[in-house]
Amino acid sequence: MITPVLLCGGSGTRLWPLSRKSYPKQFSALMGAQSLFQASALRLEGPEFAAPLVITGEEFRFIVSEQLGAAGCASSDVLIEPKGRDTAPAILAAALHLAATDPEAMMLVAPSDHVIPDAAAFRATVAAALPAAEAGRLVTFGIAPDRAETGYGYLELDAVPSAGAAPSPAPLRAFVEKPDAARAAAMLAEGRYLWNAGIFLFKVSSILEAFRAHAPDLIAPVQAALDGAKRDLGFTRLDAGPWARVQPISIDYAVMEKADNLSVVPYSGRWSDLGDWASVWRETADDTGVALSGPTLAIDCTNTLLRSEAGGQRVVGIGLDDIVAVAMPDAVLIAHKSRTQEVKAAVAALKAEGAPQAETFPRDHRPWGWFESLVIGERFQVKRIVVHPGAALSLQSHHHRSEHWIVVQGTARVTVDEEVKLVTENQSVYIPLGAKHRMENPGKLPMVLIEVQTGSYLGEDDILRYEDVYARN
Amino acid sequence: MITPVLLCGGSGTRLWPLSRKSYPKQFSALMGAQSLFQASALRLEGPEFAAPLVITGEEFRFIVSEQLGAAGCASSDVLIEPKGRDTAPAILAAALHLAATDPEAMMLVAPSDHVIPDAAAFRATVAAALPAAEAGRLVTFGIAPDRAETGYGYLELDAVPSAGAAPSPAPLRAFVEKPDAARAAAMLAEGRYLWNAGIFLFKVSSILEAFRAHAPDLIAPVQAALDGAKRDLGFTRLDAGPWARVQPISIDYAVMEKADNLSVVPYSGRWSDLGDWASVWRETADDTGVALSGPTLAIDCTNTLLRSEAGGQRVVGIGLDDIVAVAMPDAVLIAHKSRTQEVKAAVAALKAEGAPQAETFPRDHRPWGWFESLVIGERFQVKRIVVHPGAALSLQSHHHRSEHWIVVQGTARVTVDEEVKLVTENQSVYIPLGAKHRMENPGKLPMVLIEVQTGSYLGEDDILRYEDVYARN
Repeated sequence: MITPVLLCGGSGTRLWPLSRKSYPKQFSALMGAQSLFQASALRLEGPEFAAPLVITGEEFRFIVSEQLGAAGCASSDVLIEPKGRDTAPAILAAALHLAATDPEAMMLVAPSDHVIPDAAAFRATVAAALPAAEAGRLVTFGIAPDRAETGYGYLELDAVPSAGAAPSPAPLRAFVEKPDAARAAAMLAEGRYLWNAGIFLFKVSSILEAFRAHAPDLIAPVQAALDGAKRDLGFTRLDAGPWARVQPISIDYAVMEKADNLSVVPYSGRWSDLGDWASVWRETADDTGVALSGPTLAIDCTNTLLRSEAGGQRVVGIGLDDIVAVAMPDAVLIAHKSRTQEVKAAVAALKAEGAPQAETFPRDHRPWGWFESLVIGERFQVKRIVVHPGAALSLQSHHHRSEHWIVVQGTARVTVDEEVKLVTENQSVYIPLGAKHRMENPGKLPMVLIEVQTGSYLGEDDILRYEDVYARN
Repeated sequence: MITPVLLCGGSGTRLWPLSRKSYPKQFSALMGAQSLFQASALRLEGPEFAAPLVITGEEFRFIVSEQLGAAGCASSDVLIEPKGRDTAPAILAAALHLAATDPEAMMLVAPSDHVIPDAAAFRATVAAALPAAEAGRLVTFGIAPDRAETGYGYLELDAVPSAGAAPSPAPLRAFVEKPDAARAAAMLAEGRYLWNAGIFLFKVSSILEAFRAHAPDLIAPVQAALDGAKRDLGFTRLDAGPWARVQPISIDYAVMEKADNLSVVPYSGRWSDLGDWASVWRETADDTGVALSGPTLAIDCTNTLLRSEAGGQRVVGIGLDDIVAVAMPDAVLIAHKSRTQEVKAAVAALKAEGAPQAETFPRDHRPWGWFESLVIGERFQVKRIVVHPGAALSLQSHHHRSEHWIVVQGTARVTVDEEVKLVTENQSVYIPLGAKHRMENPGKLPMVLIEVQTGSYLGEDDILRYEDVYARN
C-alpha cells in the first residue's frame, strides 16, 4: 500500500484573481468539475493506495475537509502547519508521522495543484517506480518535455529514456536550474532532460535516512512539533513552538540535490503545474487557440483565454490576440499572454494599497459554511449565509448592529437570548442590538439565510463570542 | 431667446456594456459627474437660452425628468415619441410644438449624447450664428477636424474658414458621406471640410418652411400626432396612431441636403459624439495613451482604456496595447481598439441568444425609483429597492411568492390588505402570498428597502396591479 502525501499549503497568487491567499488555486475548479486538490486526491485512489495524508495550513483546514467530503474521499489524517516552511519540513513531518505506525510505509509525495489528465497512466508510472522505491531508492518523476520551457527546473539523465518502452527508473545525473531560452531549446533537442515536477516515491525509512544524512538539523524541531501536536476536530495541529524553529527549505535543496540514491522515472503523459494563466490557456485552448470558461463570447479571437468565474458575468472578447482575461465579481484581470508572470507583481501592488481583492474573496469560508456580502450601504449590509448540515455559528452578540434573518432554504435553529426556536423557509427572526444569538443547521441539507444588518458600524470585528464549537476567539 | 431642443431618443449599443437599450449612453456619466444628457442641458443654460424642450422615448421619460431634476434644470416640456422615427419627424414635432406659442421662436437642435468640453466657447459660436438664423438661414455647426476620421460625414465649404477670426457663417457647398481613409486624409489637408455634428440653429418659421418645401408629407401626420397628444404626468405624449404613419427619415436626408439656404458656422473646440469606445479612449486618455475610470490598475499599458463601471470591480491590465476593457457587474467587454465598431454585432449576438445583458441592466429604473436583484436562488430572490421621496409603487399582489420587507433607510408607508402603517429603518413587514400590498415613500429622503422573496416562481410578470399612479398595466 502506498500512502499519498498531498502537499496543500501553497498560496499561489500568479492565478489571481481566481487564486488568492485566502483560497488558493488548488481549491478552485480550474479544469473540470473537481478542484485541483480534489482531482489530486482522486487520482491516487485505488487498491494500491491508502487514504491520503494531507498537509495544509491553519486557514485551509476546513476547506480541505469540506472538499475531501464533497469528493467522497477519506483522509488518513490532516496535518496542520502553524506556518508554511516550504516542502522539506512538510515532507519530514509526514514521514515522521507515518513512521509512528509503519517505518517501512511507502509514501507518494505530490503537490495538490498540478494537472495530470490521464490518471491511469500516472498510476501505472507509479507502479513502475515501486520496485526501485522498495529497494531503498528515492524516486522522482520527470515529465517528458513537449516545449522549450524556461519556467521549470530540469532533471538530467545519463541517456535518453527509451521511447515506447514501459517507464523504468534511471539514475539522476544532475538537477538543472530554470534555463534561459537557448539552453531550454538545446535540452529539448537532446532528449536527456525531463521537467522536475516535485513528485516523489520513497519508503519512510529511506527518506528519514536521507534527512539524517543531509539535513539532520531539521529532525529535532519537526519531531518536537509532532510530539507536541494536538488533535483538534479531526485535524492534527503541529506544535507552533518548535515548528517556529524549523528552517524553511525545499526538499530539493535540503535532500534531493545531495542524495546519491536518486532514480528518475519518466512520465510522458500531459502534465502542468498551472503556474500562470498562460499555462491554463495552454491546457484548455481549442484548435483555434481559444480557451473559454463560463458565460463568454469570443468574436474573432486567437490565442486568447476568456474566463468568467463564479459571478455569471458575461465576458465578451472582440478581435483579441494573445490576451488572457479573467472576470470575477470583485476583480477583472486582462493581461497580454506573454506577461502573465507579472500577475504576482500586480497583486503585490494591490496589497500595498490595501485593496481587499488582493488576498480575499467576497465569499468568506468558515468552518460552519460560508457567507458573502450582497450589498453594503451606509448604515446597512445584506449577507447571504450558508450553513452546512449539523453546523453551528458561535453564540455571539454585537454592540452596534441589529440583524434581521430570513431563512430562504432549509431550517435553522435560532437562539435569541433565552429563546430557542426552529425557523424554516419563508420565516424571519429579529435579533435586537446586544442580544446573545446563535444560528445552527439541525437539518440534513444546507441552510441558506439572508441577513439584513442595520447599525452605525457593521465591521466583522463587532462580535463578542460566548461559545464556539470551532475554538475561535 | 433660444430654445434648446434636445434629441434624446438614441439607443446606442456601440458603447455596450455601459450603454444598453434600456438605459442608453446619453444617461451615463461617461465623462465627469454629469450624464451626457445632463451636460447637454447645462451647456445651453444662460440668459440667452429658454428652458429646453426634450424629445425622448416612452421608456426614457422618467430618466429624463429624474436627471433634469438632479442637475437642477427646468424643461419647457418633454415630448414623448411613441416610437423612434429618426431626427426629421422629431425636429418637425418640436418646431410645430413651439410654433403654437411663437412661430418666430429660435431653436437650437442638438443631440444629447455628444461631448463639448468648452461650453462657453460653444455658446459663443451659437451667438455668432444667431444673425444668420435670424435672417432666415438654416445654420448647421461644423466641427474643425483634427484627424482623418472615416466615421463621420463632412460639410464642404467653398473656402477654408479664416483661422483665428471669430466664427462666421459661410454657405455650404455640399454634404459629403463618410469617406474612406485616403479621401479623409485629403479633406483634412485641404481644410475646406468640417465634420457634420448634427447641431442646428434656425427659426421655427424657417424650418417649417423648409419642411413644407422639401418634406411636405411629414407635416400632416406629425401635426396630427401633436394635435392628439395627451398631457400625462408632466409629459406631452404624442398620439401613437398618426405617429405610426410618420416615415422615419433623418433631417439631413429630409431637408438639409435639399435646402439652398444653409449656412455653416465652424466650431474649432473639442467635440466628440463618443460613437464607440475608441472615441471614449481618445477623449479621456492621458499623455501615455492610457484612459482609466473607476477602480483600475494599469501596469505597462499603452493606448489602452480600462473602465470599471458601477460595480466596484477592480480592473487590472498588464502589458496591454490598443485594448479597451469595460467591466460592469453583469458583463465585461474586452476588445482590440481597432475593432470597437463591432461591439454592435456582439450585442446582436447576445440578443439572439436571449442574454439579458444585451439590452437591460441589473438595475431597473422605474417611475418611482429603481431596484436591482442582489441574488437569485432556486426559490428565493433578494432585491434592493430605492423609492424617491413622495413616490409610490402600484397596489399589487403575487400568486407565487411571499415577500419580507426590511427598511434600511428612510421611512415607508406600507399597505398590506386592509392595514396601512409606517415602517422605519430597522423595521420589517411580511407580505403573505396573495395579499394586496403597496409601498410608498411619504418622506423627504430616498427610502431604501431590502426585499426577500420566497416562492416557486419569482418572475417580474407574477404581478396583479390594482391601482397605479403611473398609469401602467
